[in-house]
Amino acid sequence: MSSEIRLTGGAIVMQDAARRVIERGEVAFDPATGRITYAGEVRGDGDAAGSGRLGAATDVTGCVVMPGLVNAHTHSGMTPLRGYAEDMNLQDWLAKVRAFEVRLGAEDLRAGLELALIEMLKTGTTTFADMFLWDRRMLESVVTSGMRVLAAPAVFGYDAVGYPAASPSDGRAVLDLTERLAAEFAGDGQIRLAFGPHAPYTCTPEMLADVAARAGRLGLPIQIHLSESAPEVDSCLRDYGRTPVAHAAACGIFDHPVLVAHCTHPTDAEIELLAGADAAVAHNPVSNLKLGAGIAPVRRFLDAGVRLGLGTDSVASNNNLDLFEEIKTGILMQRGVHRSPDIVRSGDFLDMATCGGAAAVRFPEVGVLEAGRPADIVILDATGTRATPLYDAASYLAFAASGSADVRDVYVAGRHVVAGGRVTSLDEAAVRERVAHTAARVRRELAAPAT
Amino acid sequence: MSSEIRLTGGAIVMQDAARRVIERGEVAFDPATGRITYAGEVRGDGDAAGSGRLGAATDVTGCVVMPGLVNAHTHSGMTPLRGYAEDMNLQDWLAKVRAFEVRLGAEDLRAGLELALIEMLKTGTTTFADMFLWDRRMLESVVTSGMRVLAAPAVFGYDAVGYPAASPSDGRAVLDLTERLAAEFAGDGQIRLAFGPHAPYTCTPEMLADVAARAGRLGLPIQIHLSESAPEVDSCLRDYGRTPVAHAAACGIFDHPVLVAHCTHPTDAEIELLAGADAAVAHNPVSNLKLGAGIAPVRRFLDAGVRLGLGTDSVASNNNLDLFEEIKTGILMQRGVHRSPDIVRSGDFLDMATCGGAAAVRFPEVGVLEAGRPADIVILDATGTRATPLYDAASYLAFAASGSADVRDVYVAGRHVVAGGRVTSLDEAAVRERVAHTAARVRRELAAPAT
Repeated sequence: MSSEIRLTGGAIVMQDAARRVIERGEVAFDPATGRITYAGEVRGDGDAAGSGRLGAATDVTGCVVMPGLVNAHTHSGMTPLRGYAEDMNLQDWLAKVRAFEVRLGAEDLRAGLELALIEMLKTGTTTFADMFLWDRRMLESVVTSGMRVLAAPAVFGYDAVGYPAASPSDGRAVLDLTERLAAEFAGDGQIRLAFGPHAPYTCTPEMLADVAARAGRLGLPIQIHLSESAPEVDSCLRDYGRTPVAHAAACGIFDHPVLVAHCTHPTDAEIELLAGADAAVAHNPVSNLKLGAGIAPVRRFLDAGVRLGLGTDSVASNNNLDLFEEIKTGILMQRGVHRSPDIVRSGDFLDMATCGGAAAVRFPEVGVLEAGRPADIVILDATGTRATPLYDAASYLAFAASGSADVRDVYVAGRHVVAGGRVTSLDEAAVRERVAHTAARVRRELAAPAT
Repeated sequence: MSSEIRLTGGAIVMQDAARRVIERGEVAFDPATGRITYAGEVRGDGDAAGSGRLGAATDVTGCVVMPGLVNAHTHSGMTPLRGYAEDMNLQDWLAKVRAFEVRLGAEDLRAGLELALIEMLKTGTTTFADMFLWDRRMLESVVTSGMRVLAAPAVFGYDAVGYPAASPSDGRAVLDLTERLAAEFAGDGQIRLAFGPHAPYTCTPEMLADVAARAGRLGLPIQIHLSESAPEVDSCLRDYGRTPVAHAAACGIFDHPVLVAHCTHPTDAEIELLAGADAAVAHNPVSNLKLGAGIAPVRRFLDAGVRLGLGTDSVASNNNLDLFEEIKTGILMQRGVHRSPDIVRSGDFLDMATCGGAAAVRFPEVGVLEAGRPADIVILDATGTRATPLYDAASYLAFAASGSADVRDVYVAGRHVVAGGRVTSLDEAAVRERVAHTAARVRRELAAPAT
């Protein structure tokens, strides 16, 4: 008897090169290797050519099976800020958020991170890219959760208007830490490191050049925020005579693998630059809309061949981490703004959330259901009202599914991290209590009269 | 002992005149009258002044309690079309949808309606306005479900381009039916009727004048689609020399209570007309975006004092009926398009989905938690990751909640129609099977070669 685990009878959204959707299919994996052994039509026992009998099948009829989702941009540790600063302009929002953030200690951030890990897993995300105050212990939480991360310890060089840096410096300490962590996790399938210069308005050109030099020496990718809003573009032009992507390129950033967050206001030349470099854009529709930052030119990116991922950004500007909301909102926003119901296909956004996002966050081996790939698999219960009738599993995923309500089981590298809607790798109730405690404490501190 | 049912300990989003949110409150109602008897801070037994002892309390600590939501515009019978026509331009979409629709019989439509009722209840909607092929039996399904509806039997006078009418006629048969149903349900708290001339591009001016005359005679409201897209405005200008709202006004429609769906392209004069009339606009952000129809000027509506409701439109352009998605998408869209994070407050959209929508759909008595009002109450489980931490229940409802995942209990007029996430008034599994069966049959018929 094979040790293979077989999920049979569900609709399989492969996300392979042909973007096959199989109405009644099967995905099998070997829990020992954590890799997919088969994905396609349902096999009978006669199909197990040469490999002995097939393993026992788990019937997933009525379900949709897809690759684990990839959240290409977030700041997970910020969950204690969920819903804290609402209905205000960007400058007031940044100031209010920062006043809270600086009161968070290492354990607060770790609890916040763990809440985000739980929320992402429960809504079908298995891999994410994240810029935050990463350290060894936070990475251990990710290992425990079972998720995969491209972690970028955030580097803030100096104070931007309304955005006091957490630790103003030349950034070297954080960059050195990044290098040490990268060495420690070299070759790891779960934890990968990136340099995290926050943005041109918080890092000097010298710091960006330092990052570029280090990236070249170590072959590490870079995460950076570029061109999030029109005022940012204006200030970059004023300070450096260049738009943000062009400025980062002039500092050497685009000589290396880069993941750019936002990019809502690129020039044509910048889009060409992004398409020609080893770069990807993490598109964050909900956050960009909620903060009124801008609307990324997704059609132009697609036409130019820019690699795209999809991100939630932090809960402070979202306010959840459900990537299914991001897919739907992303499609709707493009269609609405361009008054064209076919300017983007739903498949474009499913790609961003799976195979495209995987390449963007430097886990190119995930995001596809195919033999030999890691067994990162999401099973959605498609027996509810939202999935009735079900003509096309991909349309259900893009427009009708609720990550929060429909995701039933999640495997990462064959490990069963969500079972029947419950996370198996972390203690949800305990984590929620820790975050609620942190939130209450910080709110008390902020309400207390200054002494 | 009082027969009162008391829900105590939850956060109460009252939606009263002061928009009070009580962090730990109580809502009580009398199941015999179906009316709220108390809403406010948690009472002790000593507070039951003069009325004897308080009833037994149900602890809803960790929950958010709010008024039942109001879906101000949908076509519920269309659920068999969910996900059928995707990623295509508006003309192709209309043609594909219509070819399907004309194959739906009365029982298909009733099953479709019942699926919609179940989906709305499970996501917290208790009242809705709907234009469709309403008849006596369909209204009976609504009675059975426990919901409240402003039902408008749809009148199509003639074929619009790409939109062949289901029953081309002068509309009198449907208008006569509307009058008969209105007489039958006169004074009803659950079923109210409206005339439903579909739009100026499917109804002649004579029909609109006929509707206006009937509305005047009977005091019935009118539902109509106006100014959904720019091409519609252009064709109305070409055919009648007037924009759609002005045209309908010239036909006498705005001399009576009106619920206008969409209105994404109004002129300033039309906004003034809407504000001055006994009219309301049902805003449908997801549908307008998905079809690329346009983006309604919500800020201008608010500033002019136009009464607003919030609708999902049908699942054919959504693809679900979760009004929480509509709230979030509606806020995001306005902020993104105007690049302003404070152009609309989340409270503006909560109002549209509750008290504002209630007035818009002519059930002004619902949408508020207040003594004397009907006990239309939604309880959301706010103990999950999305609600942690919880600084402000209203922000949670607008940006983080999932109607599909979080709605736990729903009462309409004190009747417990959703209990622990399950609809008690209709058989969900049976209804889903009927709709899936309809969908499969029509798809087979459409695939068969024409004879």
